[in-house]
Amino acid sequence: MTARSISSVQIRRLSRERDQLVVEDRLATEEPLEIRLGFPDGKHRAISITMRTPGDDAELAAGFLFTEGIIKTPEQIKQIRHCGPKIGKANGTLDRAAALNSNTIRVDLNEDSLVDLKKLERHFYTTSSCGVCGKSSIEALKTTAERLPDSDLVVSSDVIGSLPDSLRAVQGIFEQTGGLHASALFGRNGDLDLVREDVGRHNALDKVIGRKFLDGELPLTDNILLVSGRASFELVQKAAMAGISVFAAVGAPSSLAVELAGEFNITLLGFVRDGSFNIYTGEKRVLAMHENAAGL
Amino acid sequence: MTARSISSVQIRRLSRERDQLVVEDRLATEEPLEIRLGFPDGKHRAISITMRTPGDDAELAAGFLFTEGIIKTPEQIKQIRHCGPKIGKANGTLDRAAALNSNTIRVDLNEDSLVDLKKLERHFYTTSSCGVCGKSSIEALKTTAERLPDSDLVVSSDVIGSLPDSLRAVQGIFEQTGGLHASALFGRNGDLDLVREDVGRHNALDKVIGRKFLDGELPLTDNILLVSGRASFELVQKAAMAGISVFAAVGAPSSLAVELAGEFNITLLGFVRDGSFNIYTGEKRVLAMHENAAGL
Repeated sequence: MTARSISSVQIRRLSRERDQLVVEDRLATEEPLEIRLGFPDGKHRAISITMRTPGDDAELAAGFLFTEGIIKTPEQIKQIRHCGPKIGKANGTLDRAAALNSNTIRVDLNEDSLVDLKKLERHFYTTSSCGVCGKSSIEALKTTAERLPDSDLVVSSDVIGSLPDSLRAVQGIFEQTGGLHASALFGRNGDLDLVREDVGRHNALDKVIGRKFLDGELPLTDNILLVSGRASFELVQKAAMAGISVFAAVGAPSSLAVELAGEFNITLLGFVRDGSFNIYTGEKRVLAMHENAAGL
Repeated sequence: MTARSISSVQIRRLSRERDQLVVEDRLATEEPLEIRLGFPDGKHRAISITMRTPGDDAELAAGFLFTEGIIKTPEQIKQIRHCGPKIGKANGTLDRAAALNSNTIRVDLNEDSLVDLKKLERHFYTTSSCGVCGKSSIEALKTTAERLPDSDLVVSSDVIGSLPDSLRAVQGIFEQTGGLHASALFGRNGDLDLVREDVGRHNALDKVIGRKFLDGELPLTDNILLVSGRASFELVQKAAMAGISVFAAVGAPSSLAVELAGEFNITLLGFVRDGSFNIYTGEKRVLAMHENAAGL
């Protein structure tokens, strides 16, 4: 989050008591980010445009490229930089101030880096022809995530119930107004490790995974993920790519999120609020409190 | 909404009181829909895959093609049908039962229908090169929506405050659990006209606009739109395509949604809850109650 993540506007507020107030309102900034891939031969190509909240753009770009299966390791990346206008004539120097506010980011690959650009096509193209429906479309949307191994990660129901409060404690007033989605990583004891926010829930998760990817800390086998909203197919898939085995959502999961979590051997928890939650898949990783007490 | 819009699963629920219950939970179904465009020469092409809640697929397809600027009038469409497997050998008849459950829908165009497939590229490609940033990316994302004329639509603050309750009254228990986004159209007096729901908020709006498009009732100059969540750039843009001049959201708008609503001369209202709301743009279309009272 940076100053640019939030925009201020003057608005009129009409309350139930019919009072009209002119107040300052803070909005989550939404701007497009174009992610470009730079090849060792100097060529570069636009890979994606996503509507995002500025801030942590390098993490977002790295996380997106990793969760889409385009890059595999941080060693493949030579540098990540915003693109900005040049100062002066041709071959001038980069205008660094303008570059910082740029909505284009370029991920330059190392010499010997092989990327699978075919992965890019999953959003744009499907091989299913008219008459070969449903299942093949879902297959086309799938990334290369694999079924997770049975880990030794077991989380107590008390810890799970405490996660939303821990998340709220670190979010500012603005974030609590509901303008942003959050993704947060916790340790098995419920200690908060990393939070990222964005107008797009998939971006918030890409930023979290991107940070860990760049730090060489994947797979996240010992972490619990909490997302502030609902659990969709796409989010479960990104979590699977990062090796996350416990996925908790404050909101509801979709049918396909549950199905996919089952396939990937992910523990999927929904409606994690007020100390209660639903277990949709993988209950073996949840230690209910009375079991805990009995074990002491 | 159809029976297929909701999936039932058995889950374990852990409550704050440490009780464990095995309960039946209802999930919003999420499945991919592949939208194909069929040309008069018999060829057809995949246009988009969207993760959606099954039900109202024809409306979704028509609404998507219209709000993306690909088709302009319902007369361009010859038929819309699900694609399913054929029964029997080659040239067999369509398996109608399977087609109903199909996740592929085909919009066949009439003979003299011209479509602008270049519009499709806005999500997949941008002309901005590295160094020409920000503004050009936003331009590339814009559809052909035009600034709305000043309409005579003026809505009282009482009517606006009543919209969320009207929406909730027609939603089922399931929808209130938060698994689905809703888009609803109201008349200027707050009477509910049309509601559609989906796991994707853009899909819910495409379904609403698609229904009105197929009925030949665009532009929606006399309607108020209420969306159950946040207002994003994309939703405001879709509303503009349909000629909606009053856009109300239960949640927060993004900075770009506010900017775009201003450009399009749309009245954008946010945090419409408990009888109160914020006016971000176009307050000329809002009649505050005390003004109303004074006028009586």
